[in-house]
Amino acid sequence: MSSKRAICLLSGGLDSATCLAIARKQGFECYCLSFDYGQRHAIELRAARRVAESLGAKEHRTAKIDLRIFGGSALTADISVPKNRNARDMEDEIPVTYVPARNTIFLSFALAYAEVTGASHIFIGVNAIDYSGYPDCRPEFIRAFETLANLATKAGVEGKMQLTVETPLIAMTKADIVRAASGLGVDFRLTHSCYDPDKAGRACGVCDSCLLRRKGFEEAGLRDPALAP
Amino acid sequence: MSSKRAICLLSGGLDSATCLAIARKQGFECYCLSFDYGQRHAIELRAARRVAESLGAKEHRTAKIDLRIFGGSALTADISVPKNRNARDMEDEIPVTYVPARNTIFLSFALAYAEVTGASHIFIGVNAIDYSGYPDCRPEFIRAFETLANLATKAGVEGKMQLTVETPLIAMTKADIVRAASGLGVDFRLTHSCYDPDKAGRACGVCDSCLLRRKGFEEAGLRDPALAP
Repeated sequence: MSSKRAICLLSGGLDSATCLAIARKQGFECYCLSFDYGQRHAIELRAARRVAESLGAKEHRTAKIDLRIFGGSALTADISVPKNRNARDMEDEIPVTYVPARNTIFLSFALAYAEVTGASHIFIGVNAIDYSGYPDCRPEFIRAFETLANLATKAGVEGKMQLTVETPLIAMTKADIVRAASGLGVDFRLTHSCYDPDKAGRACGVCDSCLLRRKGFEEAGLRDPALAP
Repeated sequence: MSSKRAICLLSGGLDSATCLAIARKQGFECYCLSFDYGQRHAIELRAARRVAESLGAKEHRTAKIDLRIFGGSALTADISVPKNRNARDMEDEIPVTYVPARNTIFLSFALAYAEVTGASHIFIGVNAIDYSGYPDCRPEFIRAFETLANLATKAGVEGKMQLTVETPLIAMTKADIVRAASGLGVDFRLTHSCYDPDKAGRACGVCDSCLLRRKGFEEAGLRDPALAP
């Protein structure tokens, strides 16, 4: 019997690592996909590779795409990453770190990868709780993509494969994610969450992503081993 | 009053050139988008640039993406382009020139471009008649993408912009397209349709794309000025 295959989108951060660990726990053979999209920190891609290896992924590919030609985001252009924002600001505004249509593009590539590997599932670590500011992290967006995916491909049209998009983290708080990751044996030291690390790859501790991660560990009552002691 | 803006996907072929000409005729300020996706013929991209200029596009950008990492298609890998196939074979089978999830990926990038330019429309020259073999050229796929697009973006979520995907060629035969292009003043010599041109950029005349183009001109009763006299 052939094993169940899944495409796992993997950024190298805590969320996508946890998502991969969940897919592995569910018995999927995992084909991981990362993106080199002109982000300022290639350290993310190294983290993704180490996370994929440590969690027994079958394969890990990195797709080069250039989102910089569209500008418009602190993660790809020369705009300052916001620091020390409070939770309310994070919730109310779509952050400048938003990349136009990013998850749509990422899922489209995952769909191509699913088609050539025969994967029936795509795992994506989106979260609608802590990052409500991103429109393409909401359940209705994910369901719409699933509908699209099943109309888009040769396998879907020929009735050979129905594709499911799995979002196991979508309703979890950051503390829930930290607890789940801990239970699944995710090696936190391998993950990288910071939007603005220093040259040695150390987290800044004050960008939105670092603040959320810290809050998650605090609420879960765990220490983040990726931070300096 | 600000002008209506549209993203126009532009391959440099006859269909996308006609689609751009239609968008211009409808009064859109056109932002053209081409893809450098490891295709074997960079000549397509030169054709796209010339077509964009000749039809008065406002802007033309080329996004580099690497679909080769997924393999699986004669247009991006080392598989022979089929030659001299009859119309029935073309209709019955999904051709090996099919690129996994290609239009999903292309439309995703168009969505990002629409978001940063404030475009309300995306024009794509898909056609459900002559190329019924491609699942991502069908009207139901296009409508599903439109639904997705309006859930995916900051502008959509904030209610500032509803995005429409325009497919003016979807129900046209190749002869209809040739007639429309002729009426709109498309310079056929600038367009490039062949899947397998020679080094000088001349069309092979026998791949599916060349055969369809020839049939279109014949049925329209016009001579194709891109062919050698």
